[in-house]
Amino acid sequence: MTDIQNRLKEFSLRFNDYIEQFFPLPDGAEKRVVEAMKYSVMNGGKRLRPFLVCETAKLFDVPLFPAAAQTGAALEMLHSYSLIHDDLPAMDNDDLRRGKPTCHKQFDEATAILAGDGLLTQSFELLSHKAVSADAGVRCELVNLLANAAGAYNGMIAGQMLDLYAENAPQDTDCERLIKRIEEMKTGRLIRYACEAGAILGRAPMEERLAVINYARKIGVAFQIADDILDVEGSQELMGKTLNKDAAQGKATFVSLYGLEKARQMAKELVEEAKASLGIFSTRAQTLKDLADFIIERRS
Amino acid sequence: MTDIQNRLKEFSLRFNDYIEQFFPLPDGAEKRVVEAMKYSVMNGGKRLRPFLVCETAKLFDVPLFPAAAQTGAALEMLHSYSLIHDDLPAMDNDDLRRGKPTCHKQFDEATAILAGDGLLTQSFELLSHKAVSADAGVRCELVNLLANAAGAYNGMIAGQMLDLYAENAPQDTDCERLIKRIEEMKTGRLIRYACEAGAILGRAPMEERLAVINYARKIGVAFQIADDILDVEGSQELMGKTLNKDAAQGKATFVSLYGLEKARQMAKELVEEAKASLGIFSTRAQTLKDLADFIIERRS
Repeated sequence: MTDIQNRLKEFSLRFNDYIEQFFPLPDGAEKRVVEAMKYSVMNGGKRLRPFLVCETAKLFDVPLFPAAAQTGAALEMLHSYSLIHDDLPAMDNDDLRRGKPTCHKQFDEATAILAGDGLLTQSFELLSHKAVSADAGVRCELVNLLANAAGAYNGMIAGQMLDLYAENAPQDTDCERLIKRIEEMKTGRLIRYACEAGAILGRAPMEERLAVINYARKIGVAFQIADDILDVEGSQELMGKTLNKDAAQGKATFVSLYGLEKARQMAKELVEEAKASLGIFSTRAQTLKDLADFIIERRS
Repeated sequence: MTDIQNRLKEFSLRFNDYIEQFFPLPDGAEKRVVEAMKYSVMNGGKRLRPFLVCETAKLFDVPLFPAAAQTGAALEMLHSYSLIHDDLPAMDNDDLRRGKPTCHKQFDEATAILAGDGLLTQSFELLSHKAVSADAGVRCELVNLLANAAGAYNGMIAGQMLDLYAENAPQDTDCERLIKRIEEMKTGRLIRYACEAGAILGRAPMEERLAVINYARKIGVAFQIADDILDVEGSQELMGKTLNKDAAQGKATFVSLYGLEKARQMAKELVEEAKASLGIFSTRAQTLKDLADFIIERRS
């Protein structure tokens, strides 16, 4: 394993221990929904988004615990909710997620819908809690920005709606514009949020905030391109999900649009641009730069 | 119409005009989800929760626009999300809501799930916005309390999980305890939130805040009892939904538990207690007192 892989691995182990505390099981029969929430959140994952929150926060001397970690936990809960709902029969109808039964397969559909709702709701409860920052203005900004990034207006929900539409888009659709918009809204906004949250927590000056936003935009697109490449040539075992699904569904992706070679080249350039955006922080941002490289080198 | 009915009607007309502004339609194909959100929110409703926010806020001299109205709009969005998700085939599988097709019938299941998610998310975006209060501490408290009241730990989601469980509860279940817990979590918490939000907006002294919380608890239970009574002897036309559903599903309700006569008596006593809790405000709380009476006298 490379150094950044080790760091990510170490972080994810610590983070898993940390986030588990937010899911105490109630006594009554309603505990089923908390079990489903916990099952989905604790089901592996690279913890890329909380890692980005914590590494960006570090640039601005924000304490890891509880400020950065709790913000990261809120974001990871929101990410998990989106996976649960995306996997539902009415949406992507997936049976496997990271090699395990999806939430509605392990529990049932009603419980999965409620578990997603519960994680989304809990995410805002965490963010608005004093532990995140003594400054209520900071907490409100974090809440407002997350709601916007995850919302139905140019946010994650709009991205998912567009993604569903894309499966049956008319022949004359501008595919390039469409997949760029889906990436930007469905995955890009939350990755950008992860980095911006670190800057908000640290009350960063605007120039530095813009630098991490720029970095996040670039790695966001690179991440999606890498995902599309892995869908074509990744290992099903490592990925823990059905591959070649995009092609089977006739879905436009960065790979179907540009071909493997050009897609790989684009991702490489984006990673270089992402690293360059962090120049202002010099060596203090080394981990974030290594992470950018890792995003396109990963095998799962 | 009685005076309170006129007031409610007038309020709901103004509120409908007001809340519509929050649903501008985007240009892209993702507008479908916003159409579904708007369809569900604009589909009638008594606007009881925002009315409670605004009337309670008035006790503490909070401006109606935008502070109280925007808080009420956030709460109504959250309430609408819960109705959309509760109506889904995997949940209560309802085709009609207020005499119109439910969201998944009018659109489709995927869009309805996303529309619910979108309204829940937008609710927190509204609450954390500066228009609600210049004091970020107030906004954070509103966000945190709403997330808690709507959440999976003793909140609305826990109530819905328990309600689903109740349909197949074992024979030896303590039905009285069960339906009281469902009422408290599924509907009670949000009604309490409506009144408490008014007190938070107005930075009310603790004694007055407790008075409105107490009022809200009592009318919350009375409201549920009245609903159970209407399910048995209401007019299907006025209610705009399938009646006698509880009995058909063999579901325990306040009526099945205590009988019509005793249930009616309990609701009456709760309303008297609710009105007495507001004694501290004397005549300034007349509208809230009239509302308490209306809750058990309404025909829909």
